[in-house]
Amino acid sequence: MLGKINRAAVGIDLGGTAVKIGLVDASYDIIAKISIRTNAKRPFQEIIADIGETAATLLKENNRSIKDCIGVGIGSPGTIDSKNGMVLYSNNIQWSHVALADMLKQYLPVPIYVQNDANCAALGEVVKGAAKGCQNAIFLTLGTGVGGGIVIDGKIFEGGHAGGAELGHIKSGSEGRRCTCGRMDCLEAYASATALIQDAKNAAAQHPASMLWELCGHQLEQMDAKIPFDAAWAGDPCGKALVEQYINSLADGITDLANIFRPDIVVLGGGICAQGEKLTQPLNQYLRQNCFGNTVTYIPKVVTAQNGNQAGIIGAAALVYQGCQQ
Amino acid sequence: MLGKINRAAVGIDLGGTAVKIGLVDASYDIIAKISIRTNAKRPFQEIIADIGETAATLLKENNRSIKDCIGVGIGSPGTIDSKNGMVLYSNNIQWSHVALADMLKQYLPVPIYVQNDANCAALGEVVKGAAKGCQNAIFLTLGTGVGGGIVIDGKIFEGGHAGGAELGHIKSGSEGRRCTCGRMDCLEAYASATALIQDAKNAAAQHPASMLWELCGHQLEQMDAKIPFDAAWAGDPCGKALVEQYINSLADGITDLANIFRPDIVVLGGGICAQGEKLTQPLNQYLRQNCFGNTVTYIPKVVTAQNGNQAGIIGAAALVYQGCQQ
Repeated sequence: MLGKINRAAVGIDLGGTAVKIGLVDASYDIIAKISIRTNAKRPFQEIIADIGETAATLLKENNRSIKDCIGVGIGSPGTIDSKNGMVLYSNNIQWSHVALADMLKQYLPVPIYVQNDANCAALGEVVKGAAKGCQNAIFLTLGTGVGGGIVIDGKIFEGGHAGGAELGHIKSGSEGRRCTCGRMDCLEAYASATALIQDAKNAAAQHPASMLWELCGHQLEQMDAKIPFDAAWAGDPCGKALVEQYINSLADGITDLANIFRPDIVVLGGGICAQGEKLTQPLNQYLRQNCFGNTVTYIPKVVTAQNGNQAGIIGAAALVYQGCQQ
Repeated sequence: MLGKINRAAVGIDLGGTAVKIGLVDASYDIIAKISIRTNAKRPFQEIIADIGETAATLLKENNRSIKDCIGVGIGSPGTIDSKNGMVLYSNNIQWSHVALADMLKQYLPVPIYVQNDANCAALGEVVKGAAKGCQNAIFLTLGTGVGGGIVIDGKIFEGGHAGGAELGHIKSGSEGRRCTCGRMDCLEAYASATALIQDAKNAAAQHPASMLWELCGHQLEQMDAKIPFDAAWAGDPCGKALVEQYINSLADGITDLANIFRPDIVVLGGGICAQGEKLTQPLNQYLRQNCFGNTVTYIPKVVTAQNGNQAGIIGAAALVYQGCQQ
C-alpha cells in the first residue's frame, strides 16, 4: 500500500539551457523537482547520463526506488520519432538521430516516452491547466519560435509521420519573410517573440521619438517582447502599430487552426502570454468575426496557459500516465 | 446465407444539382445506382421524401428488402452535425438546421449516417481509391469551392465541433481577395476552379492576343478551368503565368496541411485533377522543397483521386461499413 502511495512518474523538460526534472503524482502535482544546466555543447551521451543520474538521485532523495517510478516522460525540442523514442533533429540542442529513450533506459530501467516539447506542454494544459477537461485543444507556444501541440480526444496528435503538428509552419504573412525552416512567410516569422523583438528593433531604429526607443534605454540589444506591449498600452503610436500587426498575424494563424480542428479551446504559452486578456481579447474578437461558419458553429476560445514553467514537467509526466492506461 | 450475400449499404451523394444513390457491397463495388435531380428550390421535406422513396425502390428493384440494407450513408454539402445527423447550414442547397437522418429514417428504417461531402470523398479514396491502405490522408476537392477531408487512423476527422476540416478556409494568398466565407485570402479564393476561371477571364480580357482569349471563343462566359492549362501547355505566356500562380497557391495550402498532419498522402479531387501529373508533379516538387524538416522527415505524396463521379456514393457507403464496425 505504501508502495502505491509512493508511485510517481518522472517528467523531464529538456531545453537548450536547462533540463528540468520532476517527480509527478497521479494528480499531476509536482512532488519534487530539480534543474540542471543542459550545457548543450557537450556530447549527447554526457547530457543523457547527467539526466539519468540526476533523475535517479531525485527518486532516491524522495524515498522512491526505481520500482516506485512508473515511467519517464521527456519533452524535447525538435522533430521527434516518438514510436522509437528518438530525437530525429533538434536545432536547439544540436542533436541528430539520438536514441534518447534507449540510452536513458540504461539509467532508468522503466518505460520511457519521448515527445516534442510543445506537444508535452499541450497535454499538460489538458490534464492540469487552462484546457483541463477539454477533449480537443490546440496549443501554441510563442517563444524563440512558434511551437504547436494538438490534442484530439484527450491525446496528443503528432501527425501521421514525424514533422507533423508544426503549427508555427503554416503560411501567415505576406511580406516575404524567410522563416527559420527555409520557407517564406510562416506564422513563426511573424508571431514568435523573436519576430516581435526584431520588428520592435526596426521600428525603434526608424522612430527614435517613439516610446520603444525610450523603453529599451536607447539600446536596441535591450529590446524584448514586453516593450512593444508596454508602449502600446501607454498609447505610443509605434507600439500600437506593432502590437496590432503582431496580433493580426497570430489571429490569422489561430483562425486557420480553428477552421481545421475546431477545438474546444486554443491555449497560448510563452512569455508573451503575460499580456493576458490584452492579448486574448482581440484574438477572440478576430475569431468570432473570421472563423468559418461563425454564425452557426462553435467558435473556440483563446486563453493563456496556466502551467507556466512547470508545463514541460507536467506534460512529460502526462505521457507516462497516458501510456500506462493504454 | 442468401441474406448475407444480399446485404448492402446505400450510399447517397447529395449535390446541388443531382442526388446520386447507390447500392454498395462490402468490397465497395457499386451494385446499382440511380440519379435524381435535386431541384434544390423545393422544400427540403420533398427532397428528402424523393431520396427516401428512390432509395427504397432501388433496393426493391435489386431484390433487396430493407432488412438487407445495413445502413444509409449520406454526403451533404455544408456544415454538418454528424452526431445528430443534421445539416446545420448548406449554401448549395439552401438548408438550415435540417434533421436529415431523422427524416430519412421514416423512409429507410435503418442506421443513417450523415457527413460533409468532402469528408465522404476523402474516406472513399481511403477505402477504395488513391489512398487505399493509408491510415492518414488529406483530401482536397478543387471545385466551386475548395472542400477538405481529413482521415486519421483510417477514420474521418471532422474537427472537435462542426465547422472543422474546412481546409479551403486557411490563409493562402496575399492579394486581398474576399472569400465566400467572408474572410480575406482563404485558399478557396485562389485554388478553387471558380477562382481559376475568374483569373483566366481577367487575363483574357486584359490580353486579347493571348491563347486564353482564343480558346474561349472570344466569349468570356465560355471560360472554364481547363482553358488556362491548355494554353499553358501550348506555351502561351498568359496561360503559363496563370497556371504557375494557381499551382503555387495550391502548393502553399498543401504544404501547410503537410506540416500540420504529415499524412501518408494528399489526394486531390475535382475536375482540375484531369490535369494529372502536370498538376501533381510541380506540387510534389514544391512540397519536397518547402515542407518543414524536409531533409529528415517523410514528405507526403500528392496524387489525384481515383473514384471520380462515384466518390460520393463510395464514401457515403463507407460511413455505414465503418459505423457497423464500431
